[in-house]
Amino acid sequence: MSTPTSVILSARDLEFLLFEWLDVEQLSRRPRFAEHDKESYAALLALCERLATEHFAPHYRKSDTEEPAFDGESVRLIPEIEAALDKFAKADLMGLTLDEEVGGLQLPHVVASACMAWFTAANIGTAAYSFLTVANAGLLLAHGTPEQVERWVQPMLEGRFFGTMTLSEPHAGSSLGDVITRAVPADDGTHRIFGSKMWISGGDHEMGDNIVHLVLAKLPDAPAGSRGISLFIVPKWLVADDGTIGERNDVALAGINHKLGSRGTVNTAPVFGGGTYTPGGAAGAVGYLVGEPHKGLSYMFHMMNAARLGVGMSATTTAYTAYLKSLDYARGRPQGRPLASPDPAAPQVPIIQHADVRRMLLAQKSYVEGALALNLYCSRLLDEQATAVDDAERLATGQLLDVLTPIAKSWPSQWGQESNSLAIQVLGGSGYTRDYDVEAHWRDQRLNPIHEGTHGIQAMDLLGRKVLGGGGASLLALSGRIEETVARATDLGGEAASHAAALKAMVDRLGEVTFALAALGDPEKIMANATVYLEAAGHVVIAWMWLEQLVAVGEQVGDFYDGKRAAARYFFRWELPKVAPMLDLLASADTTTLEMREAWF
Amino acid sequence: MSTPTSVILSARDLEFLLFEWLDVEQLSRRPRFAEHDKESYAALLALCERLATEHFAPHYRKSDTEEPAFDGESVRLIPEIEAALDKFAKADLMGLTLDEEVGGLQLPHVVASACMAWFTAANIGTAAYSFLTVANAGLLLAHGTPEQVERWVQPMLEGRFFGTMTLSEPHAGSSLGDVITRAVPADDGTHRIFGSKMWISGGDHEMGDNIVHLVLAKLPDAPAGSRGISLFIVPKWLVADDGTIGERNDVALAGINHKLGSRGTVNTAPVFGGGTYTPGGAAGAVGYLVGEPHKGLSYMFHMMNAARLGVGMSATTTAYTAYLKSLDYARGRPQGRPLASPDPAAPQVPIIQHADVRRMLLAQKSYVEGALALNLYCSRLLDEQATAVDDAERLATGQLLDVLTPIAKSWPSQWGQESNSLAIQVLGGSGYTRDYDVEAHWRDQRLNPIHEGTHGIQAMDLLGRKVLGGGGASLLALSGRIEETVARATDLGGEAASHAAALKAMVDRLGEVTFALAALGDPEKIMANATVYLEAAGHVVIAWMWLEQLVAVGEQVGDFYDGKRAAARYFFRWELPKVAPMLDLLASADTTTLEMREAWF
Repeated sequence: MSTPTSVILSARDLEFLLFEWLDVEQLSRRPRFAEHDKESYAALLALCERLATEHFAPHYRKSDTEEPAFDGESVRLIPEIEAALDKFAKADLMGLTLDEEVGGLQLPHVVASACMAWFTAANIGTAAYSFLTVANAGLLLAHGTPEQVERWVQPMLEGRFFGTMTLSEPHAGSSLGDVITRAVPADDGTHRIFGSKMWISGGDHEMGDNIVHLVLAKLPDAPAGSRGISLFIVPKWLVADDGTIGERNDVALAGINHKLGSRGTVNTAPVFGGGTYTPGGAAGAVGYLVGEPHKGLSYMFHMMNAARLGVGMSATTTAYTAYLKSLDYARGRPQGRPLASPDPAAPQVPIIQHADVRRMLLAQKSYVEGALALNLYCSRLLDEQATAVDDAERLATGQLLDVLTPIAKSWPSQWGQESNSLAIQVLGGSGYTRDYDVEAHWRDQRLNPIHEGTHGIQAMDLLGRKVLGGGGASLLALSGRIEETVARATDLGGEAASHAAALKAMVDRLGEVTFALAALGDPEKIMANATVYLEAAGHVVIAWMWLEQLVAVGEQVGDFYDGKRAAARYFFRWELPKVAPMLDLLASADTTTLEMREAWF
Repeated sequence: MSTPTSVILSARDLEFLLFEWLDVEQLSRRPRFAEHDKESYAALLALCERLATEHFAPHYRKSDTEEPAFDGESVRLIPEIEAALDKFAKADLMGLTLDEEVGGLQLPHVVASACMAWFTAANIGTAAYSFLTVANAGLLLAHGTPEQVERWVQPMLEGRFFGTMTLSEPHAGSSLGDVITRAVPADDGTHRIFGSKMWISGGDHEMGDNIVHLVLAKLPDAPAGSRGISLFIVPKWLVADDGTIGERNDVALAGINHKLGSRGTVNTAPVFGGGTYTPGGAAGAVGYLVGEPHKGLSYMFHMMNAARLGVGMSATTTAYTAYLKSLDYARGRPQGRPLASPDPAAPQVPIIQHADVRRMLLAQKSYVEGALALNLYCSRLLDEQATAVDDAERLATGQLLDVLTPIAKSWPSQWGQESNSLAIQVLGGSGYTRDYDVEAHWRDQRLNPIHEGTHGIQAMDLLGRKVLGGGGASLLALSGRIEETVARATDLGGEAASHAAALKAMVDRLGEVTFALAALGDPEKIMANATVYLEAAGHVVIAWMWLEQLVAVGEQVGDFYDGKRAAARYFFRWELPKVAPMLDLLASADTTTLEMREAWF
């Protein structure tokens, strides 16, 4: 009864966004991407669609039902996961954006993101192993020594080693400055690691030859808090100088977490060196310092921005694929009759003919296509930033990325959940059963506002660090870009012009409210409603993405373009107006939550 | 690691709502309830709290993990379910509101609802079996013969028989007029039933001595559509005149549905008489006509209103219990430090001290306490209607119930989901694991906007049937009641008065928009955005419930009352303003979804 797996993402929409809107071909003029062209991009996208469809989508339900199991010795995954990841690595997809000199394809991020979208749409649980490994490799390429790159990164890019990000501890999740895992210098220049970690995705399994943990730990002389945390490579298996696998390192497993969704990705509580340092006790897990002492958290935050953009894209594709599956169902399921001709003797009509079902489908379309546009736009900015022709371009793209990253992470996570819920609703009772995929996508989605910085932390990051921390410059950069779009849409006239006017008014209001917040002075009052700020800014940004798409659509004729027009209209008429009461609330500097006392609950 | 099961609902809040607000004691002046008083109500509530805590809550997680299984012969449930239901029946809780002459306690609905809230909060999956049975019994008491009551209802009230509502078929869910199950008259005055049903909760199990299905089917001479459907009693086991259990009736099982949540309640696809009538084939399942031919759907709709109010209450308690569990967690979990004193050497503080966590808790409080107020208010109206002193009171309460029922079903289902999601978010990563209950409540909740009439169907019911169908009289009745509250709150002055003014403005606007919709003339255009109408009216009604509570709070001093004030303030400042853009959209008679074409998706 499972939905056909061919409908996992819209190739047509990706084509529109990349080539008709973002003009990705133009990037080939930049030296870094000179060897690529539209044809090679299209071929790669087609390859990814095929691999995702044939090797990732088919075991989506199975990896949910038969989740990872830990027998006290090892973690067992269903074999389809390793088989899929093997195909992925063999197709050279691990190093899409990396430099050619380390074996990467040196692709633009925007194309690589679109490629990866196929895999997260098909099976986020399986795709996550490769993304963690790529993130690990990217961090070591940026901060590791050439020897570390040779020993750990190369096998990861070949798909022989897997990587993890080993940050959280049972008492230190959002508050990473509180990690207490200990790193003791050893005589041979390496370190010995002792500590218990928590929430580590991909933290143990039998795939490949090794697992490379990137572990946050504190050196004996470390200052308190986030400025005293160092980063270490801690492999599951030690590796000899010639690259051969040696003895098992002292990395054990306290257990695995049993999750609501995203079950294909094992989530673990690993233990290094027995968990606690005791003089004369366990020798500890061998670890290799990455970069300089005490700078681990800053290295991680560099990676974190990429990871947050990645979470945003996964959230979008998790909603996108559910949207397409609910659309497929709505076209095929007969139920009820049109309001205008309720003759009970006439046959029932497909539910897509009911206005309320069309509402639920159109809402999903406006959410997922708007979010995908934002995700790809941010990837395009990464490319501009990395290949900036001058400091001005580097600064401008950096400012935009600063302010857009928390939105590109949080908006798809929040509205993707709403979208996934609508997909269930379209299917009715069937949507509530495990015979269809939509309920599993809804469960998968619920992780996204939690991991890689919760929704509330994105809000603090946006308002506190990115907007006010920079004295408002990044918000001005954003408004400037939005006004360019507004100008082009105004020139188009008609509906685009009226949408543009609505967006302009809301952006201006957002600016005023931001100024008023800053003027409050008291940090607690300023930050009290940061989440509302994040959500208001998010809706404004997605409206902008819709206006951008409308400009790209222009006067073109056809169902696809009419669909874009309708989804844009939906967003402007149904969604953007929701921002007004949010801005009113912010403008009133409401202190309801701040004043709430614990005893009143 | 499970949350202590003692925190499943707030006894203090129930006490406030029943005795300080709804003045339930006053009902004892009505002859029907003359034998009850506050003391007996309180004793019964305490009994329900104890039974729910001791016998329903403890197997909540187990009934999710070890869901019902069908081996081709019979359906197995975990034994704790039958044990809990046995305690429930033995405590005489099956007939709380029924007449004393049939063995009921003749309690007011409002007290009975509060009693039942304990059980749905503790374990909705187990409680559902009793509610289905009570609904079945109630329908037979209203429309069955004395013999039918004697044979089927009495054993249900004693907990020996269980009941089902057997309505839907694979091709007929929302569109019940399309059922094709066939009822063939037999020589002995009974009927023979042939057909396949779908989505039947409690449709098979080994509990008790028998299962009494109430089955919708069509007689040979039935008119097409919803006016041609009759209702039959079809027991799993035939029963002799003396009440002894006889042979097995021809009721089989095609399979059971595997659901996202609410797993303790088995959901089945039963087959009657082999599924299809063939001359000379199976003899069919023995069925007994209830009431008159072709009137089955109207009998069912009578029950359906009660069922919808029940779904609303379950939605509320599913959110309420998750709120209390997240509150408990937030008080005990240290993480991070106050914005005002971020010294990393200081110990971490409980997360309830963070403004954003308080926001998530306060939002939940405002949703669940607002929804519970509405559910109990509707139950109070049922009591007034049932014991009305004159036609005027009967008419007035009926009009209010007309318009409030779809809201009391849909609002807690929609905002309960949001509330349940916030409960997960408060727990962060832990909330995403199956070690805590909040993820299970979130999954359970997702059923509520689907069953007993989907969210979209509630919208059609409210706008089409209840508001416009009655020429606006029921909406006027509602506005009248709201204005009484507004007047009392205005007299209080202060914050209550300013909330009252905000509510008054929104109610007036809702009235104007309703008038404008009616004036559109074209039913398709009027109904196109019925869901927005439902949601706007819902928020207005919950704001009214908060104003009602504020009036009851008056000038009273103490943390409990301050908590009510804060939650009311939250709803008026954060939630009610969301109605404005909804009403704007309705006023614009937006046709975006109506005009959307299938080819544009």
